[in-house]
Amino acid sequence: MPGIGRKSAQRIAFHLMERDRAGAERLSQALAEAVAGIRHCRRCRMLTEQDVCDICASAGRDASTLCIVESPADVMAVEDATGYRGLYFVLMGHLSPLDGIGPRELGLDELESRLASERFQEVIIATNPTVEGDATAHFVAEMAARYEVPVSRIAHGVPLGGELEYVDGGTLSHAFLGRRSVV
Amino acid sequence: MPGIGRKSAQRIAFHLMERDRAGAERLSQALAEAVAGIRHCRRCRMLTEQDVCDICASAGRDASTLCIVESPADVMAVEDATGYRGLYFVLMGHLSPLDGIGPRELGLDELESRLASERFQEVIIATNPTVEGDATAHFVAEMAARYEVPVSRIAHGVPLGGELEYVDGGTLSHAFLGRRSVV
Repeated sequence: MPGIGRKSAQRIAFHLMERDRAGAERLSQALAEAVAGIRHCRRCRMLTEQDVCDICASAGRDASTLCIVESPADVMAVEDATGYRGLYFVLMGHLSPLDGIGPRELGLDELESRLASERFQEVIIATNPTVEGDATAHFVAEMAARYEVPVSRIAHGVPLGGELEYVDGGTLSHAFLGRRSVV
Repeated sequence: MPGIGRKSAQRIAFHLMERDRAGAERLSQALAEAVAGIRHCRRCRMLTEQDVCDICASAGRDASTLCIVESPADVMAVEDATGYRGLYFVLMGHLSPLDGIGPRELGLDELESRLASERFQEVIIATNPTVEGDATAHFVAEMAARYEVPVSRIAHGVPLGGELEYVDGGTLSHAFLGRRSVV
């Protein structure tokens, strides 16, 4: 499990067995309930206990913008950091043909039917700026363009608080190309 | 000195005195020559041995764009990473009133006279995305606007290869606001 190595795992196991058997019982039940109850939202593929997740079901969200992210953790990050009030579509990964992950595995057929049936004013692509994320962004952008939905991608550049001198060349080059006029 | 602590300094000193007195002599001379010979370029304030630095003196550079950076190291970074072929202006710091660093210390009067006398098509502000860098950028942008020179600032956002989940909230928020349309 991420962040827990062999030693930590052993320490946790001994702790639960020697001192907190009731806690182990509760953890076991919680896990069983999670496995049984948590599935993907029918509309955005986010993890949820309902058929449709809270964000998709909310009447307070702006249904005219759709933000495409790679993982549920990205939804959390965008919700926490930005004032974004639109909907999401969670790919649950990125295109990676070598690992057998193609458009079908990312639910891009579902995305296509949403693009066709709903009237989006903007699709914001927020996949990671990695090679696979870029390829996925390109694929999604072309699909959205086919349905004549305006597409944008979140900015790539120097992170806040960063110093030019310590930023890698690719990022600096992107930041230069992506400069925006001010005033 | 940056990157050299007390122990390293002692080790270097002993090495030079015990095993490489000729090297110490050469280092001493090189430093003395540097102190005597290196000054600021009269036009862009970059460190140079001439009156005007190589970039300012070069006929091959595009004299219609001016990139504003905080330090000579930033000039190196931009030169190495991007295809930028214009001129530079090196502030040698950022506005920091508490440390007594105001517009005069950054040579902004020199910058102003260049903006007034030369016909720039674009001023690209590449100060660091820190609080002081932002304040400096704002000051320079207003100055350039007074001379009706178009101003842009390099992009701030998620660095290449970064993952949304691990990017700080401020950067993600900026990346969202700074999204660009694609296709």
